[in-house]
Amino acid sequence: MHHMSVWVPTGLPDIRPGMDLPALIVDLCRRSELTPQDGDVLVVAQKVVSKAEGAVVDLAGVDPGPDAYALAAQAQKDPRLCQVILDESRAILRVRPGLIIAEHRLGFICANAGVDFSNVGLGEDCVATLPRDPDASAQGLRAAVAAAFGASVAVIVNDTHGRPWREGAVGVAIGVAGLEPLFSHIGRADLYGYVLHSSIEGIADELAGAASLLQGQAAEGTPVVLIRGARFDAASAGGRTKLLREPDKDLFR
Amino acid sequence: MHHMSVWVPTGLPDIRPGMDLPALIVDLCRRSELTPQDGDVLVVAQKVVSKAEGAVVDLAGVDPGPDAYALAAQAQKDPRLCQVILDESRAILRVRPGLIIAEHRLGFICANAGVDFSNVGLGEDCVATLPRDPDASAQGLRAAVAAAFGASVAVIVNDTHGRPWREGAVGVAIGVAGLEPLFSHIGRADLYGYVLHSSIEGIADELAGAASLLQGQAAEGTPVVLIRGARFDAASAGGRTKLLREPDKDLFR
Repeated sequence: MHHMSVWVPTGLPDIRPGMDLPALIVDLCRRSELTPQDGDVLVVAQKVVSKAEGAVVDLAGVDPGPDAYALAAQAQKDPRLCQVILDESRAILRVRPGLIIAEHRLGFICANAGVDFSNVGLGEDCVATLPRDPDASAQGLRAAVAAAFGASVAVIVNDTHGRPWREGAVGVAIGVAGLEPLFSHIGRADLYGYVLHSSIEGIADELAGAASLLQGQAAEGTPVVLIRGARFDAASAGGRTKLLREPDKDLFR
Repeated sequence: MHHMSVWVPTGLPDIRPGMDLPALIVDLCRRSELTPQDGDVLVVAQKVVSKAEGAVVDLAGVDPGPDAYALAAQAQKDPRLCQVILDESRAILRVRPGLIIAEHRLGFICANAGVDFSNVGLGEDCVATLPRDPDASAQGLRAAVAAAFGASVAVIVNDTHGRPWREGAVGVAIGVAGLEPLFSHIGRADLYGYVLHSSIEGIADELAGAASLLQGQAAEGTPVVLIRGARFDAASAGGRTKLLREPDKDLFR
């Protein structure tokens, strides 16, 4: 009987800009007697990565331009927040009162281009943005775990995104290291010998969602998750772009 | 340290129409010495549910109508398959050569309205359709586990769907029993006392995706997964409709 374990160590300190998050996660694992092994997947919530890397903006210092005022009027949001959203975006796809769906500069399509007030804790006007390069963040965590424990783990930086057609946001991978984010079943035979010809599974997102189940989003403070027993193909290159569909292949923009 | 376990018992027999799937899953758990407990989540792949319930169609007996021939020409697919897809759909949303995105009669938006050749094994022209009422299927499994083990478990029937914007299909819940499929963080305080006002998590889909990671889709035959340690709110009513966004609230059709 196959088994997958998902551990959620508690006790990561409050993360502030400039802190060494990889070292703190290594320390958290040690204190929790949780020793990463080859083939484990470490999932870390975007918010602590952003904060440690200083990807935070104090709205008090933002001077909104005309486009931000126009977006703010349409969305009924703070013009300063809208300026940050525009700064983080390639395109604004949909706007309704209370809702902005943007294409983030890295290609993710999500609410507010990932700019978020929650779990920041650096002052009431401070928002977090997505990490500059989440694949690089994941690579840094992967290297720290390898150095501390001698283990080759995959790392996913996850966020929670809404999606069309279905209610509820779900965990998705925005940064990936050491793991092929797509698992292809194409060419493998099914139970009865029928060769699958169209099945590619977004396993990085499924792992991100499994972690999200236990990370909580509220007053729990458990952004670090370790998964053991998942099947995946190792990859040396970063991987978030493999999860993003080319716009000209997307039928629902 | 919180922990979630995901078990994948092996040895479910080949499922044929008319078999008593709940009894076979109870037997599988017993043989695997896997005893469901209150609060566990049992996830069962759609394909075995459909087959046991006889939700299969032999294309040899299908007589395509003009709409099916028109769809087949546009999609470059078998007209008989297209007739079954039309029979299973409320609407056809997008068609390209090799691709049909449909709104299934139950509201799911997915490729081919869930009609699928893989892992059927009842003859090369046999396709499986989604269960008639997957919430009822989940309720039946939940009742069988309660009767056999005296345990109140949640049950999810899962399938794998593609999605806009992101590559790779992921597990989603198409039938739910005993679990509130959406977990609302609204009104809960974050780590720093900021009250969340927009966060609803699609936990049934995250659980479905976690199970999908281990079910495999090819020659492994492990459609049954038991998850212990997930946080969810119990619900007595079935729940798939809660996961489906109302069309007039959907900005991406």
